[in-house]
Amino acid sequence: MRLPRPRLLTARAALPFAPRFSTASFRHCSCTDPKRELPPIPPTDHRALGTSQELFTSSVYSPGSPLFLPNGTHVVNKLISFLRTQYLQYGFREVLTPTIYKKSLWEISGHWQNYKDDMYEVTGRGASGDTAGELGEDESYGLKPMNCPGHCLLFKSQTHSYRDMPIRYADFSPLHRNEVSGSLTGLTRVRRFHQDDGHIFCRPSQIKSEIASALGFMDMAMKTFGLGPYRLVLSTRPETDYIGTLDMWDNAETQLREALDSTGREWALNEGDGAFYGPKIDIQLQDQAGKFHQLSTIQLDMNLPQRFELEYQVAEGEPDYNPATPGVATPVLVHRAIFGSLERFLALLIEEHGGHWPFWLSPRQAIILTVNQDDAVVQRAQEAAAKFAGFRALLNDGTVESPRPLSSVDSTFLVDVDSSAQTLGKKIQRAKQMKYNLIFILGPRDLENGGVTVDVTGQMHSKTDQGGTQLQALIKAKLGDDALQNPRAVKLNVEDVHPLLVELEKNFV
Amino acid sequence: MRLPRPRLLTARAALPFAPRFSTASFRHCSCTDPKRELPPIPPTDHRALGTSQELFTSSVYSPGSPLFLPNGTHVVNKLISFLRTQYLQYGFREVLTPTIYKKSLWEISGHWQNYKDDMYEVTGRGASGDTAGELGEDESYGLKPMNCPGHCLLFKSQTHSYRDMPIRYADFSPLHRNEVSGSLTGLTRVRRFHQDDGHIFCRPSQIKSEIASALGFMDMAMKTFGLGPYRLVLSTRPETDYIGTLDMWDNAETQLREALDSTGREWALNEGDGAFYGPKIDIQLQDQAGKFHQLSTIQLDMNLPQRFELEYQVAEGEPDYNPATPGVATPVLVHRAIFGSLERFLALLIEEHGGHWPFWLSPRQAIILTVNQDDAVVQRAQEAAAKFAGFRALLNDGTVESPRPLSSVDSTFLVDVDSSAQTLGKKIQRAKQMKYNLIFILGPRDLENGGVTVDVTGQMHSKTDQGGTQLQALIKAKLGDDALQNPRAVKLNVEDVHPLLVELEKNFV
Repeated sequence: MRLPRPRLLTARAALPFAPRFSTASFRHCSCTDPKRELPPIPPTDHRALGTSQELFTSSVYSPGSPLFLPNGTHVVNKLISFLRTQYLQYGFREVLTPTIYKKSLWEISGHWQNYKDDMYEVTGRGASGDTAGELGEDESYGLKPMNCPGHCLLFKSQTHSYRDMPIRYADFSPLHRNEVSGSLTGLTRVRRFHQDDGHIFCRPSQIKSEIASALGFMDMAMKTFGLGPYRLVLSTRPETDYIGTLDMWDNAETQLREALDSTGREWALNEGDGAFYGPKIDIQLQDQAGKFHQLSTIQLDMNLPQRFELEYQVAEGEPDYNPATPGVATPVLVHRAIFGSLERFLALLIEEHGGHWPFWLSPRQAIILTVNQDDAVVQRAQEAAAKFAGFRALLNDGTVESPRPLSSVDSTFLVDVDSSAQTLGKKIQRAKQMKYNLIFILGPRDLENGGVTVDVTGQMHSKTDQGGTQLQALIKAKLGDDALQNPRAVKLNVEDVHPLLVELEKNFV
Repeated sequence: MRLPRPRLLTARAALPFAPRFSTASFRHCSCTDPKRELPPIPPTDHRALGTSQELFTSSVYSPGSPLFLPNGTHVVNKLISFLRTQYLQYGFREVLTPTIYKKSLWEISGHWQNYKDDMYEVTGRGASGDTAGELGEDESYGLKPMNCPGHCLLFKSQTHSYRDMPIRYADFSPLHRNEVSGSLTGLTRVRRFHQDDGHIFCRPSQIKSEIASALGFMDMAMKTFGLGPYRLVLSTRPETDYIGTLDMWDNAETQLREALDSTGREWALNEGDGAFYGPKIDIQLQDQAGKFHQLSTIQLDMNLPQRFELEYQVAEGEPDYNPATPGVATPVLVHRAIFGSLERFLALLIEEHGGHWPFWLSPRQAIILTVNQDDAVVQRAQEAAAKFAGFRALLNDGTVESPRPLSSVDSTFLVDVDSSAQTLGKKIQRAKQMKYNLIFILGPRDLENGGVTVDVTGQMHSKTDQGGTQLQALIKAKLGDDALQNPRAVKLNVEDVHPLLVELEKNFV
């Protein structure tokens, strides 16, 4: 194998000695003026909470593309890993697909002609790239606004038997849509975002079970996040200008109706409001203020599989065997998202929780405050933090000892230590302002018995823990009824904390 | 909060009824002809193994942007989650940053002028986007080839005290560089790739401990992946055309030398070969054939912090307090990557392991083969698969029962079932071809005693398990010395398998 020299450093090394960019013009950028980022908005707005919790920021250098700070990235990663884990049970397999595709692909999918205003065009700037080639190496690219054409390419790259169907791809790629600049707002109206995108390629007879499965997945997710109620709306065939046969539509709509009925919930009909290429189900979530938000969508598509000439192999005698195309049939494509845009879902979560994250999502899960600055106390606090967190963080200075690699079966938590010289009162006040779920206090009297005191009232704000019920039940089960007489000062043994945190994580509270 | 109507469906619904794309022109695309993707390459090449293991594919619609199939995505995600977990201990915090930035940002960083040939330019296609605005809303964007300017914006968006330093950001964003089309090869020479990119903003006095920590991280990663040996090369100040003072360079280089010495390893000097903006350390890994590959790099940068006018607050009396800029100092920036390009690292792993993945990385960890197709046997195989995997996968057809949400503290594994009508011999042959690490066999005689037979010889190919030593030690510890007399037919209890898999994962074998 020949590995080329790494580009990063050779390219950097080639940068000539360049003068500093003019200070004056740089200082005009609003990224140096945080106040400009925040026009007067209510403190319950996700933009205000996003700033106070250090979740995300924005920059004039990429309007509509949120920059996620470490705390915000932590929550986004939690959302993604939650879905990734559920994908195992729901039969989705994640794929990783390109960001840019040549114009000719978007012409096949129809986006280049019909989605023009919302797409970005990409071209090579230099002479080293695109010069010749089969499809036109000098052809320009489209920055992807959707994953579907890429997933059609993936499906087409392999042979599929009817026995292997459905094929379910999931993708968390960044997507770009050129929204009007005046409309850009926080995380809700953006130009760059991530979807929990899924595409199911199935046989016509599998529509019902796939839709029922998607509705079940969505319901489980909403319950886990403490969201709801929601309503289901079916949009059916438009009167004119639809593709496919009446038989195909009737079959698809009947299966969608049956899947909706199987949920045991009421659902509404939006007759004739489906897309020209298939019926769809919208899931509209009601927030605490009574307002409805569209998150999940399940959209049938009989168009893209035709445009991309997708097919699967089918044996004679099977219901989808078509003598006109012996041996092969065209799959039905289902586009589906549970959260929709992760950015928009995050905005909703921020506002629903008012900044009081449940423990499992929280970027500030626990903090240990030292009563004083005695060496023995500070050292014990560091040791306790390593035990609670499941790992020992490197110190910012001092010698480095190589830690053992942590594996995916190790359970880890975010645990901070405040051993500053401030009074305990000040430290508690600050930890509460920062909305830590659990505030541990450790002093000289804890050194002998290996104990620690914990204020659990932060976790009692968690919507999904209904006033800290599950946390309290866990503590009671471990320590007896007396332990919780004062939830601001529960006595625990240092060794008992990590297992407690594992239980909180496991129960999504 | 006002949530806009979702764009995906309204935009799709607006697509007019469009004719199918011409079949003839589509059929000319090489993506319909998988043979074209594979010019004659040796079977040990990562491209051949990538195809036979269904890891990745490519498309003429995005040359140089690999499309990762589910198996390949699984391994890439494992690499990322491995790093993410270690980041906790090494004090890195992950961030999520934009894909496109306006031209003016790349002019500040110097890339627009000096990295021109390798960059893609991005423009809005329609009239709805960029029309007016402070920085020039009609300004074009650059598709990012590196994360550093974005991380400088993030650092600048918050105030930093010298007490909070170092600040360490990590980012797995997709990056794009416009490589010459003729040079594109598999995963090693690409246009779109992901780095395990890290940027450390630190005080000048912290260089040594940060470099020592990065070298320790790299060493731990190489050992875990069974790679090495490697050599360390220090490149120092060029004779002319460098920025900064001689003092700054001497201080930085002394700390790099001390950090290298502290590893206890030999290292080589490449005098005068550093970049104009700072010295660097290259880590060159030797493969089984003796060839060296550059993976990790640690690069000091005194240029970008100046260009972006980055600063941190520093108190009088601190060594980095400068009376010329009272109260503030300029941080040193360290660019560092452990794996470098994840795509290139994956190519190296594929070839080093020859397709025999260690259990923890394998996309084909285990398979259960049924001896026959009796209902009781097939049902037991499904139950056993759910126990081994840690979750019950939905069936492709039949009713859907809503499963409990899986949490991040649940340990899950990839376990397939082959209950097809083929002979057991055929199934075993196929499972071995597919390089499953563990091949379980379940028949009627296992139904009563809850047992299962396992062929562990697949795992014995794992480089990081040195001939299956750790797996065998685990089985011996559990079942006694006799258990391993015939590694092709080890008797296990179904209930004992999941804990065994957890141990394999934990030990990175």
